[in-house]
Amino acid sequence: MSPEDSIRIVLVGTQHPGNIGSAARAMKTMGLANLVLVAPKRYPDPEAVALAAGADDILGTALVVPSVQEALAGCTYVIGTSSRERAVALPELSPRQAAESLVAKSTHSTVALLFGPERTGLENEELQLCHARVFIPCNPDYASLNLAAAVQVLSYEIRLQRMAQCGNPPVSGGRDQEPPATFEQMERLFAHLAEFMQEVDFHKGKSPDLVTQRIRRLFLKADMDEREIKILRGLLADAQRLLRQNR
Amino acid sequence: MSPEDSIRIVLVGTQHPGNIGSAARAMKTMGLANLVLVAPKRYPDPEAVALAAGADDILGTALVVPSVQEALAGCTYVIGTSSRERAVALPELSPRQAAESLVAKSTHSTVALLFGPERTGLENEELQLCHARVFIPCNPDYASLNLAAAVQVLSYEIRLQRMAQCGNPPVSGGRDQEPPATFEQMERLFAHLAEFMQEVDFHKGKSPDLVTQRIRRLFLKADMDEREIKILRGLLADAQRLLRQNR
Repeated sequence: MSPEDSIRIVLVGTQHPGNIGSAARAMKTMGLANLVLVAPKRYPDPEAVALAAGADDILGTALVVPSVQEALAGCTYVIGTSSRERAVALPELSPRQAAESLVAKSTHSTVALLFGPERTGLENEELQLCHARVFIPCNPDYASLNLAAAVQVLSYEIRLQRMAQCGNPPVSGGRDQEPPATFEQMERLFAHLAEFMQEVDFHKGKSPDLVTQRIRRLFLKADMDEREIKILRGLLADAQRLLRQNR
Repeated sequence: MSPEDSIRIVLVGTQHPGNIGSAARAMKTMGLANLVLVAPKRYPDPEAVALAAGADDILGTALVVPSVQEALAGCTYVIGTSSRERAVALPELSPRQAAESLVAKSTHSTVALLFGPERTGLENEELQLCHARVFIPCNPDYASLNLAAAVQVLSYEIRLQRMAQCGNPPVSGGRDQEPPATFEQMERLFAHLAEFMQEVDFHKGKSPDLVTQRIRRLFLKADMDEREIKILRGLLADAQRLLRQNR
C-alpha cells in the first residue's frame, strides 16, 4: 500500500455534497488520497465534483459504505474528531498529537480519521469505536468549524508530521514483530468479553453500558496486537469451557 | 485594541464573495476578528453572508479599501502568503514560524497577514511590502489550496500560538477523574490474573513465563486507572466464585 493510502479519511453521514468535494480537495493538497464515505445524504452529486476542483480522482476512488463498521474494516487504529464536550471517556489528543499517532502507526498498517455529520458531529456510539479523539482548539464562542476546514487542518498536521518523518526516520516504534490488532479483531474481543460477563453474571441486573464503555476504552488505549488478543480470548475460552462443563 | 483585533487578515483582490464569507468563518472559529478587503471583485454580496454562517459580524466590521498600502496602515509587521516560488528575496517562514512572529509582535502593535487573489496569489510588488512570506507546505502535484482553507490553516496556527502564550495547555490530559492505578494495584491485578490462569489451566503444562510477560506489557501500556482495575478484578472474582461453586 502506498503511504498516501494508509491513512483513511472517513466522512460519516455528510449532509452536503459540496463538503465532500471540498474535503477531497483539502486531502489532496496535503497528499492524502484514501476517502471513505459512510451513508452520505446526497452522493454522487455534481456539486461534490465542482468543489473538488481537480481532486475528483479522490472522489472517483472513494468507497461508499452503509456503516461506520464497514468503513473501519482492516484498520488498526482509529481517531474520531469531536467538536464539543462529549461524555465519552476517550483519550483526547490535540491535532498535532493525533497526526503523530496516525503517521507513526500508518507506517505498518491502515489507520482511520473519522469525521461526523456537519451539525451534529459523531455520536457517542461512533466515538466508542475509536482509540482516541481529537479536538481542534476553537473559539469557544464560535466553534462552527466547517467540515472541510476540519479536514484541512488535520490533513495539514498529517503532512507536517510526514515531512518531519522524512527528515529523520523514526526508530522502530518499540512494538515487537506482532501485527497490530485490526478493528474486527478488537470488536470480536469485546463481543467475547461481553458474553463472558453475561455468563458469570457480572452485571447482576444492572445495565452493562458503563462497564462496557470502560472495558472498550481500557483495551483500545492499550493499542493491542494480535498475539495479545489471542491470549485474552484463549483465557476466556478456557474459563468458559470449565464453567459449561460444571453446569 | 483588543488582542483579537491586533492581527489583521487582509484579502487582496478576492474574486469570489463566497471565499470572503468562508474566510470570515475560518477567522472567527480561531478567535480572529479584524478583516480588511482590498478591492474585492464582488462585495458586498449575499453569497459572502451565506458562507460566513454566523461570522457575519466580521463581515459587518470589515474595512474595504482600494489599495494594499491602505490596508496596511498602522501595521508594524506584515507577512504575505505565497503559494509558489516567487522571485522575491524575502525570508520564508513555515506557518508555525509565521504564527510565532505575528503573535509575538501583536502584543504591542498591529500586524497583518496578506492573502492574494484565488488563482494568482500576491504579486511580487505586494510581497515586497512584507517583512516575510509564509508558505503552507502542499502536495507539489496539487497545490490548489482554497483561499479560505489557507486562512483556516494560518488562523489555526495563530490560535495555537496564542494558547501556548497564555500558558493554557491546549487539551486536557484525556484521563477523566479516576485516579491512576498505583504500582501495588497493578501487581495485585497481575497476581490475580496469574491465579485465574492456573485455575482454568490456561498454560496446560507449559511455562507461564512468556504469557505472563505479555499480559504485564499489555496492561502496563494501557496506563490503567483504579476503576479499570476494579472492573477487571471484579470480573475475575465473579468467574472464580462460579467455578469454585461448581467444582
